[in-house]
Amino acid sequence: MTTSLLDSLRSEATGAPASGIVELSKYARAAGDVIQLWVGEGDTPTPAFICEAATRSLAAGETTYTWQRGIPELRQAIATYASNLYGRPLGSDRFFVCGSGMQAIQIAMTMAAGPGDEVLIPSPVWPNAPAAAGLRGATPVYVTLDHGNRGWQIDLDRFEAAITPKTKAIFVNTPSNPTGWTATEEELVAILELARKHGLWIIADEIYTRFVWTAGQPKRAPSFHDVRQDGDRIIWVNTFSKNWAMTGWRMGWVECDPSLGDVVENLIQYSTSGSPIFIQRAGIAALERGESFVEHQITKARKARDTISEAIEASGRCHFSRPDGAFYTFFGVDGMTDSMAGAMKLVDLAKIGLAPGAAFGPGGEGHLRLCYLRSQGEIEVAAERLLKALKAF
Amino acid sequence: MTTSLLDSLRSEATGAPASGIVELSKYARAAGDVIQLWVGEGDTPTPAFICEAATRSLAAGETTYTWQRGIPELRQAIATYASNLYGRPLGSDRFFVCGSGMQAIQIAMTMAAGPGDEVLIPSPVWPNAPAAAGLRGATPVYVTLDHGNRGWQIDLDRFEAAITPKTKAIFVNTPSNPTGWTATEEELVAILELARKHGLWIIADEIYTRFVWTAGQPKRAPSFHDVRQDGDRIIWVNTFSKNWAMTGWRMGWVECDPSLGDVVENLIQYSTSGSPIFIQRAGIAALERGESFVEHQITKARKARDTISEAIEASGRCHFSRPDGAFYTFFGVDGMTDSMAGAMKLVDLAKIGLAPGAAFGPGGEGHLRLCYLRSQGEIEVAAERLLKALKAF
Repeated sequence: MTTSLLDSLRSEATGAPASGIVELSKYARAAGDVIQLWVGEGDTPTPAFICEAATRSLAAGETTYTWQRGIPELRQAIATYASNLYGRPLGSDRFFVCGSGMQAIQIAMTMAAGPGDEVLIPSPVWPNAPAAAGLRGATPVYVTLDHGNRGWQIDLDRFEAAITPKTKAIFVNTPSNPTGWTATEEELVAILELARKHGLWIIADEIYTRFVWTAGQPKRAPSFHDVRQDGDRIIWVNTFSKNWAMTGWRMGWVECDPSLGDVVENLIQYSTSGSPIFIQRAGIAALERGESFVEHQITKARKARDTISEAIEASGRCHFSRPDGAFYTFFGVDGMTDSMAGAMKLVDLAKIGLAPGAAFGPGGEGHLRLCYLRSQGEIEVAAERLLKALKAF
Repeated sequence: MTTSLLDSLRSEATGAPASGIVELSKYARAAGDVIQLWVGEGDTPTPAFICEAATRSLAAGETTYTWQRGIPELRQAIATYASNLYGRPLGSDRFFVCGSGMQAIQIAMTMAAGPGDEVLIPSPVWPNAPAAAGLRGATPVYVTLDHGNRGWQIDLDRFEAAITPKTKAIFVNTPSNPTGWTATEEELVAILELARKHGLWIIADEIYTRFVWTAGQPKRAPSFHDVRQDGDRIIWVNTFSKNWAMTGWRMGWVECDPSLGDVVENLIQYSTSGSPIFIQRAGIAALERGESFVEHQITKARKARDTISEAIEASGRCHFSRPDGAFYTFFGVDGMTDSMAGAMKLVDLAKIGLAPGAAFGPGGEGHLRLCYLRSQGEIEVAAERLLKALKAF
């Protein structure tokens, strides 16, 4: 009887894949006392000054419905932050507050692709992006990055060759979760040229832009903001989660041409109907007073990246290059063909939980993802355990 | 250039309708000093004990990712609340926390209907439900309720006649926003029989069940819980917004057979990836300690319903019957053929803002919706203004 319930659901719904990261996390939690490196989240709670902004708002009774696009003060704060970050004036009418970076991706996918359409996605990739395309009835078309001596690289000829008449959008996550691949400005120009030539939307996920480890310690990664012109078909998706340790708050934003504002507003209306005012007040505090915290996170991640990278290199067992951005390492383990089994083995052998590479789509199997945005003390213990386990693998 | 941006979006996205309620609200806000009766929201902020539960959680650092289905304590609290309300044991594995009643509807629509499918909807109806169907690529098929001497009524023969081979789901909102129509148990049995006979999903929106004005002052309206059997294709959508004055919190839940749990979890994962823990703690406080507040809201709404109904009746200008449930009146004004113009006229004449009936789909034009969940003092002023304005209409 209950089987027929499942069978009678729409295939888009039943076809939505379970997260391989969740499967590993359940295994690791059951094992107990495991260092949690499988999730895209630091080990610091949200700073008190951000929480207190929400608390004050709650105490003031800001508990009603509000602007679907976000309260004007937050939209202005995002615009100011983004204008400073990208070094060009960006009006608040470009920014639309929504209920997480994930919801921003869902909205962008709904705008750009639907049944019969294809969405081009460099892979390995955070699995939620292709899943969002699939839920719209669109087909994610993966173009695997190459993993060579210079780290993860995109082959632009192969990328263009994957474009068909059905292609409607390109999802570009740079710096990349999980690989750390960080597009150069030249690569962004090339991708944008392809989008212009073929009339494609770009969904730009640059949420890790502040976490960039390329030479010269730039304050952010190259962005489509650096190369775009008016009229380009680009929708940015963003989140408060990573920079300000606000993963649990579920707030993000969409950025696009203001002419699309009514469409975005309607999509917010029919998804979650806006974000809580008190969470938006916390977002303003983060943007306006969070800079030193973000810098602290970057410094912490840079050091942790080095510590973990040294251990992986010292193992002599890994196919690995130091990531250019984000706060993950994504490395291949010699002889490991089943990354879920490998990840479980690391839980058992070393009490460290990494995410299985197979969860990240084509090009991911044989790899493991490790999130290193954690205290240096814990990272040193994790590095030691990882090195020992890899040698015995 | 920007026109072509809009043109290049998917039709499901650009076709999502703007809310007629929003248009009126902008007009009324611009007029200033208008009594706000257009929105489905009371005039009381969330009770302090609920806000404080969130504040304590924030102070304790509960700011991380969490269970996609909702924290176990909240799912248990919902199950306990629902078991008491419906008088039958309901396990916590039936309940899935999500980011608003709206998101619950979106998830339910995604499960039940997609491109090429039809969703049957009694109308007038809260416009967000058919919009959610449209965003899935499904076609909302409206069956208008009759508005006769016995109030709003459903014609079940006409309802069955609207079923086609493409019909996949029925959206049933009872008690209804905007009409107050409240299905009897016999009507629910008949609808359920139709669903069984034709293999349709029922999306049951019973969020106003506590606000019921039928004879005998029952503690809730008839529910599909009263008539369902295991294996029935029913998905309930629910929200914290109305009972506990938590409109601005954006939290609701989906209830369905536990066998569908993995599907619901994935749909939450790819929509908003869960609800903030601190908001969930507030939800627990509401469920476990909010009963006297809910009863206070019901008492307030019952009195306000009478006051407003008397004014409408006294005008001698309206096609009206006292609503059986929810906290809206939905009345026709003799000679009014353009409800948006009529609503604007009431703003100008009487400084009261009502929602235009045309916003609520077929059967709505010629009507106005008034939300009466407000203080008795304000409702008395509104009733006086409304009566005077209707006489001069």
